[in-house]
Amino acid sequence: MLSTMQDGHLSIGTLLRHGSTVHAESEIVTWTGSGSRRETFADLGKHAAKLANALRGLGITGDQRVGTFMWNNAEHMAAYAAIPAMGAVLHTLNIRLFPEQLVFVANHAEDQVILVDGTLVPLLAKQLPEMKTVRHVIVANGDPATLQAPDGVEVHSYDELLSRQADTFDWPDVDERSAAAMCYTSGTTGDPKGVAYSHRSIWLHSMQVCMTDSMRLAESDKALAIVPMFHAMSWGLPYAALMIGASLVMPDRFLQPEPIAQVLATEKPTFAAAVPTIWQGLLQYLDANPQDISHLREVVVGGSAAPPSLMHAFEERYGVPILHAWGMTETSPLGSVARPPKAATGEEAWRYRYTQGRFPANVSARLIGDSGEEMPWDNEAVGELEVQGPWIAASYYGGSQVDPEKFHDGWLRTGDVGKISPDGFLTLTDRSKDVIKSGGEWISSVDLENAVMGHPAVAEAAVIGVPDEKWDERPLVAVVVREGQQVTAVELREFLADKVAKWQLPEHWTFIEEVPKTSVGKFDKKRLRAMNSDGSLDVTHF
Amino acid sequence: MLSTMQDGHLSIGTLLRHGSTVHAESEIVTWTGSGSRRETFADLGKHAAKLANALRGLGITGDQRVGTFMWNNAEHMAAYAAIPAMGAVLHTLNIRLFPEQLVFVANHAEDQVILVDGTLVPLLAKQLPEMKTVRHVIVANGDPATLQAPDGVEVHSYDELLSRQADTFDWPDVDERSAAAMCYTSGTTGDPKGVAYSHRSIWLHSMQVCMTDSMRLAESDKALAIVPMFHAMSWGLPYAALMIGASLVMPDRFLQPEPIAQVLATEKPTFAAAVPTIWQGLLQYLDANPQDISHLREVVVGGSAAPPSLMHAFEERYGVPILHAWGMTETSPLGSVARPPKAATGEEAWRYRYTQGRFPANVSARLIGDSGEEMPWDNEAVGELEVQGPWIAASYYGGSQVDPEKFHDGWLRTGDVGKISPDGFLTLTDRSKDVIKSGGEWISSVDLENAVMGHPAVAEAAVIGVPDEKWDERPLVAVVVREGQQVTAVELREFLADKVAKWQLPEHWTFIEEVPKTSVGKFDKKRLRAMNSDGSLDVTHF
Repeated sequence: MLSTMQDGHLSIGTLLRHGSTVHAESEIVTWTGSGSRRETFADLGKHAAKLANALRGLGITGDQRVGTFMWNNAEHMAAYAAIPAMGAVLHTLNIRLFPEQLVFVANHAEDQVILVDGTLVPLLAKQLPEMKTVRHVIVANGDPATLQAPDGVEVHSYDELLSRQADTFDWPDVDERSAAAMCYTSGTTGDPKGVAYSHRSIWLHSMQVCMTDSMRLAESDKALAIVPMFHAMSWGLPYAALMIGASLVMPDRFLQPEPIAQVLATEKPTFAAAVPTIWQGLLQYLDANPQDISHLREVVVGGSAAPPSLMHAFEERYGVPILHAWGMTETSPLGSVARPPKAATGEEAWRYRYTQGRFPANVSARLIGDSGEEMPWDNEAVGELEVQGPWIAASYYGGSQVDPEKFHDGWLRTGDVGKISPDGFLTLTDRSKDVIKSGGEWISSVDLENAVMGHPAVAEAAVIGVPDEKWDERPLVAVVVREGQQVTAVELREFLADKVAKWQLPEHWTFIEEVPKTSVGKFDKKRLRAMNSDGSLDVTHF
Repeated sequence: MLSTMQDGHLSIGTLLRHGSTVHAESEIVTWTGSGSRRETFADLGKHAAKLANALRGLGITGDQRVGTFMWNNAEHMAAYAAIPAMGAVLHTLNIRLFPEQLVFVANHAEDQVILVDGTLVPLLAKQLPEMKTVRHVIVANGDPATLQAPDGVEVHSYDELLSRQADTFDWPDVDERSAAAMCYTSGTTGDPKGVAYSHRSIWLHSMQVCMTDSMRLAESDKALAIVPMFHAMSWGLPYAALMIGASLVMPDRFLQPEPIAQVLATEKPTFAAAVPTIWQGLLQYLDANPQDISHLREVVVGGSAAPPSLMHAFEERYGVPILHAWGMTETSPLGSVARPPKAATGEEAWRYRYTQGRFPANVSARLIGDSGEEMPWDNEAVGELEVQGPWIAASYYGGSQVDPEKFHDGWLRTGDVGKISPDGFLTLTDRSKDVIKSGGEWISSVDLENAVMGHPAVAEAAVIGVPDEKWDERPLVAVVVREGQQVTAVELREFLADKVAKWQLPEHWTFIEEVPKTSVGKFDKKRLRAMNSDGSLDVTHF
């Protein structure tokens, strides 16, 4: 029996119409380095209409892809609104991809037009000749004359192009399951893989961001979106803000601690979102340059695990609670959020807050053990996390749902390894490809790294598994010694003795100049493994 | 281009699995008259499984309808969970329908089984022989022997039947657009009309209830659901609570001010939902029997307009903010919620709070004027409200989307007349069938009634339009004089003189014993019009 309810409605066009009328006076504030420029949501409605008219004029039709190579600013927000609302697909290009990855994703998505910020023109220009489908480049916040375009590519000034356009657009009805926006993951294995979010998935995700037990975004908020709009859609903040009329503060390219502190002092946002590195940098800056930041009701931290020390520092020294969250590009990204249950107080509440968070009703989760069995939620059993839900990827763009490395009977394999408590809180312990499988037990490379990095002479430590005849795999520790310090493998093994179980104590050690990193700054263990295999590491064995 | 995101997931089965695991310790508390009985969400999961097994055992398959004729209690909650989760359709029968309406809706929905509370058996028993499709009646919270069933109908004890069942059930995957639950409107014209909510519409509506700018329901809440589960799904509280783990307090049949005050004192809920009459009664009781109710962070009022005096009394005398909301059975029911924008403070905030509220992104709205034109949102122009959205009815069960009285180009005609502010706040002034169209202008019957009821000698006043040769329609006022008081039409006209525009001053007056009421206690103006037409009113004309 079919219901009698209406269908449709869940589209970026509806969201834009709503935000630019009901919340006409809410603002998008963009930092200029020395102050702010402001645009109301009513103006955003007109701005987006002009951009849509301009793109139609350049021949964008149907579901063609339009790339953005931009910082977080008002023009990027207009692209977020206009491109999906006109029925096209927004492709946010990650400015930190390696050059060959950038070329790959632009060609794979078949981007027709790219919007680029003036300061990023040099970064794009080098790769542009290899981007086969790009016909137009629109330069915002800068001089288009700085871009020497290859043959067949037209260069436009954003301001000039838009100044000629009408400020209304008849946003079409779209099927809610059609693609609205794309984001490629920058994994360490193989080519980047594209996730195509639907109008429906973005709508549902935006609602979640505004739920009281999630990020709690409200009309009364002014949200500082530090997390880039080219990283998993700035964690959903732009569309969620449009849904409920929260004002947005965009830092543009000013992401260092000092300008962020200036933005805080000037705009006094109530909410902010960024990866741990940003908060760590800001904390050091604030400790040296005290400033009241208690206007922040809460800040959300994700992308990688938030160290408890960072959470305590912000709350105890600055009165700002850090909300820990977990997600990935394939999960839109909101997977879990660490709000403790009402019954937990004091130390117990903190223990909940250290976790990666609780799964909402929209995200079903399970843990899969080594031999494919489902593991219990007892906060002890460890397995690979698999998730399901309306904003979780079912496949990659141009790929297949039958990709056993990534999808498993309709569940997304996250590649994360961890445990889940009976009340649905996730604690991650490792990446599945990095976990060390030793004698039927799993050793967390992350736990070992943290233990080694606890030594004062250690700047960085990366742990990988190496083949072992008896145990299958055993840990190898690659250590970067802090400048001016000295430490030996023997000393480090002794240091670990009372910190990890005896059977986990690593017997392979090497000292390196620096840990190889991926384009987004994570340890590149694939390269480390290759360095070990080809004998370029000098390893001490116990 | 299709997105790469997963589909499905939005179902009551997913909700039940989530609530009964992640929020296993949250509770459903049912008032017994002298205390509380409690069930955890984990127990609800088993309880619902037993009920589903029992219903399968009685032959319920596919999308057959199962009726409930029950108060708000743990057994009704189990029915809310089990019936849609097993793929069948929950039909909440309104115990206050007139007998012929009750028979009509049970037959129209083709209910196969009815769950009835013991105390409601006498009310159901009389109509049961006329309910053609009912094969089984299950008596909860009472003695099945009290029900003399007609031939072909089997009577069961809820407890006995469930005690024989397994406490697990393999909840099937359902299409999110299939019907989950039905509710019939009890309009004053024609037969009741059925709205069939989908799994999808209920899911989205539940998310909305938990949004910070909506009802703000959270895991930390204990929500007292006074609004009946047979009235527009108890405004969505049962499913929303399951979604985020709020505990529920159910008053069962104890809806008078004194037991409600007892429930408040005993359970200290943080949130509550009811129509204005309930709050008015509770206010009078509390004023006579003072009690601290500041554990209520907020209470929501809808169903009909909340008088500003009531809102001020609760906030100023008891520290409990009243949140005004508007909706109807056809809108699931959440249409709009009156949270003032952040910029509004003091008197201005109160003016926002008196309105019916702001439309969320999920509800698009427009006002249609007398000649079919769309009216502006200037907080002055008046028109009939039409709404669109994923939890708004597109048709009635067994009806057609082409029903010009109720649907208009894919929009629901609400039958409500009002105005909308530029920032999306709705103020209702009348029902469209009750508005008086006089000389091309609209006179609000509600405004006139409120003005007349401002006279100390008036207990009630109902205003209808009567045909007029010159002006098309003019107002007729039916007055019920307060016991022991006296007042004349001349005096009332004088009283109104400085309260309404001169051209609105009514020239037709009648005095009656009581205003005829509908089954849900609203003024039955259809009957009043009939009484006027057939000459049974004694009318004074000026």
